Amino acid sequence: MAEQIEFDQAHQTLQEVSEALENGRFVYVRRQLQDMEPEDIAHLLEASPRKSRDVLWQLTDPEDYGEILDELNEDVKDNLVSKMAPEKLAEATEGMDTDDVAYVLRSLPDDVSREVLSQMDTADRQRVETALSYPEDSAGGIMNTDVITIRGDVDVDVVLRYLRMRGELPEATDALYVIDEESMLIGHLSLSTILTTQPDVKVIDVMDDADEAIHVETSDSDVASLFERRDWVSAPVVDSDHHLVGRITIDDVVDIIREDAEHSMMSMAGMDDDEDTFAPVVKSARRRSVWLGANVLAALAAASVSNMFEATLEQMAAIAVLMTIVPSMGGVAGNQTVALVIRGLALGHIGDSNKRELLLKEAAIGFLNGILWALIIGGIVVAWKGNWMLGGIISAAMLTNLLVAGIAGVTIPIFLKKLNIDPALAGGMALTTITDVIGLSVFLGLATVLLT
Amino acid sequence: MAEQIEFDQAHQTLQEVSEALENGRFVYVRRQLQDMEPEDIAHLLEASPRKSRDVLWQLTDPEDYGEILDELNEDVKDNLVSKMAPEKLAEATEGMDTDDVAYVLRSLPDDVSREVLSQMDTADRQRVETALSYPEDSAGGIMNTDVITIRGDVDVDVVLRYLRMRGELPEATDALYVIDEESMLIGHLSLSTILTTQPDVKVIDVMDDADEAIHVETSDSDVASLFERRDWVSAPVVDSDHHLVGRITIDDVVDIIREDAEHSMMSMAGMDDDEDTFAPVVKSARRRSVWLGANVLAALAAASVSNMFEATLEQMAAIAVLMTIVPSMGGVAGNQTVALVIRGLALGHIGDSNKRELLLKEAAIGFLNGILWALIIGGIVVAWKGNWMLGGIISAAMLTNLLVAGIAGVTIPIFLKKLNIDPALAGGMALTTITDVIGLSVFLGLATVLLT
Repeated sequence: MAEQIEFDQAHQTLQEVSEALENGRFVYVRRQLQDMEPEDIAHLLEASPRKSRDVLWQLTDPEDYGEILDELNEDVKDNLVSKMAPEKLAEATEGMDTDDVAYVLRSLPDDVSREVLSQMDTADRQRVETALSYPEDSAGGIMNTDVITIRGDVDVDVVLRYLRMRGELPEATDALYVIDEESMLIGHLSLSTILTTQPDVKVIDVMDDADEAIHVETSDSDVASLFERRDWVSAPVVDSDHHLVGRITIDDVVDIIREDAEHSMMSMAGMDDDEDTFAPVVKSARRRSVWLGANVLAALAAASVSNMFEATLEQMAAIAVLMTIVPSMGGVAGNQTVALVIRGLALGHIGDSNKRELLLKEAAIGFLNGILWALIIGGIVVAWKGNWMLGGIISAAMLTNLLVAGIAGVTIPIFLKKLNIDPALAGGMALTTITDVIGLSVFLGLATVLLT
Repeated sequence: MAEQIEFDQAHQTLQEVSEALENGRFVYVRRQLQDMEPEDIAHLLEASPRKSRDVLWQLTDPEDYGEILDELNEDVKDNLVSKMAPEKLAEATEGMDTDDVAYVLRSLPDDVSREVLSQMDTADRQRVETALSYPEDSAGGIMNTDVITIRGDVDVDVVLRYLRMRGELPEATDALYVIDEESMLIGHLSLSTILTTQPDVKVIDVMDDADEAIHVETSDSDVASLFERRDWVSAPVVDSDHHLVGRITIDDVVDIIREDAEHSMMSMAGMDDDEDTFAPVVKSARRRSVWLGANVLAALAAASVSNMFEATLEQMAAIAVLMTIVPSMGGVAGNQTVALVIRGLALGHIGDSNKRELLLKEAAIGFLNGILWALIIGGIVVAWKGNWMLGGIISAAMLTNLLVAGIAGVTIPIFLKKLNIDPALAGGMALTTITDVIGLSVFLGLATVLLT
C-alpha cells in the first residue's frame, strides 16, 4: 500500500503542521518543511488558511521558493509574490521555468517587474523577455527555451558522445531537435531512437520530420488538445519562418487541461476558476456579487411576469403555491442540455455540420421527459388540490417548458459562442431566465384564461 | 500558422465528410478515412450523429479499429463494440493497449467477452486476464504490461547493446525498470541517464530508487494527482510484495484528469459524464429523468412551504409575485460556494484541519453579499410596490438566506463526502432545496406575521 500510505501521510502532515503552527512550534514546522518536496509544500500552502500560509512561507527555505511558486495555483501565487521584495523575487526566479517567471512578472506592477528583471542575469533576462513578448495563453507563453539542438549530418555516435559530455538533460526531454544552418527546425530525434539505432547511422536518416511543430501563436487550448490526441510528451515550437524557438512539455499541458475543465465547472456556477479556496472575504464577496447582480435581473424578470398576473394570483392562492414548479423543472432540464453542449463545444464535437441533428435530439428528449413529468405532476396536483383543470394547466405548461428548455439549451451556448461570449459563464443564467419566463407565462397565462 | 491550419482542416474535413456521406459518396469518404490518423478518425466519430457514425465505421479500414477504439469516449466505444462480431473484435484487440482491451471486454456480455478472449493468442490473453483481475478504476486497471526490465549489476554499456539489439521501445518509455532475481523492483534508470553517463558505470550506481512506485490497488484519481504533482511521464506499478507488475503512462493519466474534471461539471448539472453528445433519445431521456425526479421532490418541498402560507398569499398577491426572488438568489449564492468546495475536496485541499476556517469565510461572504443585496432588493421593492414593510421583509429574508446559503454550501458537500455520496452529484440539488425552503419560509413567515 505504498501510495495509500503516502496519501494518508500528506493529510497527516497537513494536520500536524497546522496544529504545530497554532501552538507556535515554529522550529518543528521549519524542520518538517525542510524534509518536504517543493510540490508537497505547494499543496500544503494551497490547503492552508491565509494567516497560516504567510507564516509557512516565512518558514520555508528561500532556496525552494522558485520551485514552489512553479506549482502554486495562480491566486495563491499572486498573493505570495506581491509580498516579496524584488531582489528576493529575482533570486527565486533562478529555480523557476522561464514560462513561470513570465507568468509571475505579468502579475506584478510594471515598476516592480522591471526591477526584478534588472536583477536577473543577462541570459535569463533575455529568455524571460522573449516569453513576455507572447500572449500568456499562447504556445509562446507556455513554452520553455531549454531545448537541445543537433545537426542532421552527424552520426548518432557523435550525438551520444555530445550528450555524455553535456551531462544532465532538461526535465521531460524525450527528443533532441534537429536544425539546419539557419536554425530552421527540420526534424526531431527521440531518445529511444538514439538508444535503439546503430551508432554509425546519420541523424537525418533516422529522425522524424517536423511536420507537426507547434506555431508560437497557437492558443494554449489548441496545444492541449493536440497533446491529448497525439499522446505527446513534448513538442517543438516554431515561429512563422519555422525557426525553432522553444518546446512545450506535457506537465504544463496537464495544468492547462485541468484549468480548462475546472473553468467550465466553476464558470457554470458563476465562479472565477483562479479563485483560491481561502481567498480573502471582501475580495471574494466582490467577485461573486457580479454574478448575483446578473441573477437579480433574472429574478426580477420572473417577478415581472408574475406581476402581470397579479389579479389571477389574488383570486386563487393555489396558483401561487404551484407556480414555482414548472420554472424549476425547466431550469434543471435545460441546464442538463447546456452542460452537454458546453462540453461538446469545448471538445470541438459540435459544429455547423451537426448542430441541427443535436437540436432535434435535445428537443425530442425534452418532449419525452415533458410528457412523463406532465403526467406525474398533473396527477399529483389533481390528487392534492382536487382540481382537474389545474392539473391539466400545469401539465401543459410543463410539457411546453421542457420542450423550450431542450431547444434553448442547444441554441443559447452555440449563439453565445458565435458572439465570443463564454458559454460556460453566461449559458446557464440565460437559460434559466428563459425557462423561468416561459414557464411562468404559460402556467399563469393558461390559469388566467381558464380558471378566472 | 502550422497548427492553426491543422485545426481549420479538422473542421473542414468533418464538414466535407458529412456532406459526402449525405450524398452517398462512400468511395470518397473511404479514401479520406485512409489518409487520417486513428485519433482524428476517433474525433470524427465522436462528432458525428449516430447514423453517420455507423456508416463511417463500416468505411474505416478494420486494421485501424484497435487504435481508434483506444481513443474513443466510453459511450461511443461501447456502442460500436456491441455491434462487432467476436472474431472481428479479437482481431481489433491486437492493435490495442492491454488496459483498453480490458475496458472493452468489461462492457460486453460475459459469453461474448469469453469468446473474444478465446480467439486471442495465449500471451495476449494472459495479459488481458491479469488486467481484468484488478478493479477498472485502480492502478491495475489502467496500467500496461509492456515494461522493459534490466538487472542492476550490469554496466550501462550492456544496457545500450541490449537496447540496440531489441529495437523499438514501447510508447512513452522514459525509463527502464531495474529488478532483482525475485523480480522485485529496486529502481529505475531513465533514458536520459543512460545517455549522459559513461558506458562503464554499473546500473545500480546511477539508477533512481523505487520509493515512489505505485501500488496496484491505488485508485486512479490518486494516481492522477501523483502524476500531476510529481510531473511524471511514466511510473512503475508494484504488488504488495513490491514485484513489478506493469507501468502507467501519462497519456492514460491525462484521460483520467480530463474525465475527473468533466465528472464534476457534468454531475453538477445532473448528467452522466460518459454521455455521448449524440446518444439515442430514449436512453438519454431515461438517464436524465432520474435527476428531474429528484428535482420534483425539491420543487414539491418548496410548494408545500408556500402552501402553508396560502391564506397570506390570498390576502396579498404582491407577496406571491415577489416570493421567488429570495430563493433564487440563495440558490445562486449557495451554488457558488458548493462549486468552490467540490473543487477543493477533489484537489485534496479541504480536510479536518481547515474546514472551520472555510465555514467562517463563506459565512462572512454570505453575510456581506446578504447586506448588499438586501439593501438593493429592498430598495427596488419599496420603489416598485410602495410598501416599506414589504421592502423590510424581503431584505431580512435575503440576508438570512444568503447567510444560510454560505453555511450550507460548505457543510453539505463535506457531509455528503463523509457519507460516501458524490458531492458533485447531490450537492447542488440538496443546497437548492435548503435555500428554497429557508428562503420561502422566512419571507412568507415574516409577511404573515407583519402584514396580515
